[in-house]
Amino acid sequence: MSIRIVATGGTFDKHYDAVKGILGFDKTHLPQVLSQARVTVPITVQELMLLDSLDMQDADRARIREACSQAQEERIVIIHGTDTMRETAEVLGTAGLSKTIVLTGAMIPYEVADSDALFNFGCAIGVVQHLAQGVYIVMNGQVFSWENVVKDRAAGRFTQR
Amino acid sequence: MSIRIVATGGTFDKHYDAVKGILGFDKTHLPQVLSQARVTVPITVQELMLLDSLDMQDADRARIREACSQAQEERIVIIHGTDTMRETAEVLGTAGLSKTIVLTGAMIPYEVADSDALFNFGCAIGVVQHLAQGVYIVMNGQVFSWENVVKDRAAGRFTQR
Amino acid sequence: MSIRIVATGGTFDKHYDAVKGILGFDKTHLPQVLSQARVTVPITVQELMLLDSLDMQDADRARIREACSQAQEERIVIIHGTDTMRETAEVLGTAGLSKTIVLTGAMIPYEVADSDALFNFGCAIGVVQHLAQGVYIVMNGQVFSWENVVKDRAAGRFTQR
Amino acid sequence: MSIRIVATGGTFDKHYDAVKGILGFDKTHLPQVLSQARVTVPITVQELMLLDSLDMQDADRARIREACSQAQEERIVIIHGTDTMRETAEVLGTAGLSKTIVLTGAMIPYEVADSDALFNFGCAIGVVQHLAQGVYIVMNGQVFSWENVVKDRAAGRFTQR
Repeated sequence: MSIRIVATGGTFDKHYDAVKGILGFDKTHLPQVLSQARVTVPITVQELMLLDSLDMQDADRARIREACSQAQEERIVIIHGTDTMRETAEVLGTAGLSKTIVLTGAMIPYEVADSDALFNFGCAIGVVQHLAQGVYIVMNGQVFSWENVVKDRAAGRFTQR
Repeated sequence: MSIRIVATGGTFDKHYDAVKGILGFDKTHLPQVLSQARVTVPITVQELMLLDSLDMQDADRARIREACSQAQEERIVIIHGTDTMRETAEVLGTAGLSKTIVLTGAMIPYEVADSDALFNFGCAIGVVQHLAQGVYIVMNGQVFSWENVVKDRAAGRFTQR
Repeated sequence: MSIRIVATGGTFDKHYDAVKGILGFDKTHLPQVLSQARVTVPITVQELMLLDSLDMQDADRARIREACSQAQEERIVIIHGTDTMRETAEVLGTAGLSKTIVLTGAMIPYEVADSDALFNFGCAIGVVQHLAQGVYIVMNGQVFSWENVVKDRAAGRFTQR
Repeated sequence: MSIRIVATGGTFDKHYDAVKGILGFDKTHLPQVLSQARVTVPITVQELMLLDSLDMQDADRARIREACSQAQEERIVIIHGTDTMRETAEVLGTAGLSKTIVLTGAMIPYEVADSDALFNFGCAIGVVQHLAQGVYIVMNGQVFSWENVVKDRAAGRFTQR
């Protein structure tokens, strides 16, 4: 079983630019994350885009859907910003792809102290190999079906709606 | 669904003692790990023992089996040293408990740079909620059945045997 | 010999707010920094303000000057944003205080991977105990006199002018 | 002004070997430390040996003295284990070299959470440029003359004797 990981940006992959003094994007941290995770499952990383999910447009979501559709792998993890993760999950969920797709991300960037990125990624890699076909959001140690999840922005966590 | 986490020690929970200058044990890092992970699943942490798994005896494994047997939760994650993780898994696997039990740990301590602890823990928390009853080892992003796993000590990873 | 540390904000003390998704300020990291540094010199920490130094006004600099003037300690380290560190150093340098004052900060926040905060702080704590009265900027492992330093913003470092 | 840094091992440079499961040595972390520190002072790193200072013999100390004697730089920082840092300082102090030599190290390895390595290194780099010729130990934010320092092992810190 092999897994495709599609990087689309979000807090998970934010990088602090010391010269500009801002949190932005450089390139995905996924190669370093995979090395740290000591993963032995065959994995292909695809850096599709690096966007704050609040900046993500319909055309970007169409590109993500296309990337999932064209992927040879049947199991896909998408690294995504949390603010519009549900919207992208809905685009993928209504597309009727015959794949197991898990969206995850982070509330604190991978390179910032106390980050949840590595935990969420572990959770996603684990369950994507065992869930039935469908589209899921994995955050806070839980698996949510795309039709049945909402981000509680005030609390900073995902819950069933 | 609620999960019990049983800490038994191992590399995952090693702590550097600055005065003694050694890696030993203080108390489990699990409360900090759970906070970092932002987990919202109901979880009970039980610090059963803190041992290097090479020091673990039959009596210790019997205590772990008893802890699993007596737990009210049907889903249990055991934090364990990697060197004899398979042996403990066998004790649990042959005990015929009607539970889903996942053993995990780390190759590099949680508090050391580049640790796999948080990833492995995420993977374990994710799959323990979705696997059928049985005893599993979760390492390297993979789920291994207890009857069918071996640690390749030279390579520092788990593989199917 | 005792040292006063005056926190005024800057990149050093930036904190990632997981709910808001921004790097802002909560409270100074200095108590944690001092614990990590295992410092045994008597130190008093004063959180005077927590500002991005680009937002610092004349009135704020007057407050910093007053804090230095009124401090019982003769040796003072000021944690400050790098962008206008030179301007504050000039206010202090022209004030004619009979003290040894060192301004330092960071290019990457203390809580972000690869931060220079702890190094700069160590450098400042070391030299403030050995320099003659005057006002200095300590960054990049160097001690600069306040009259003779400029931040090269494109390169992200301080140099003699 | 240029500085020579002589790596001799000690807790500062310990590295966790994931396969062997021990804290040992690989190579010095100093190139990474210097990059993180954003130092612009000209620095030459010399990895002379990587020893636990409890294993250091008279011949090793003679090699350190020779390295200091032959160095073109007049200012030298030695990274050293804390347990026998005073003994090496004495060898250097009685050698009558016309240089400024600072010994420093760490109570917690650079790659372990909450390490004092970067702070101590910053402190050493700062003061070595400003102290008169002589041999010093820099730990806990303080500069100790080599004739007048002792490690309080129970408390894990250096004090004047």
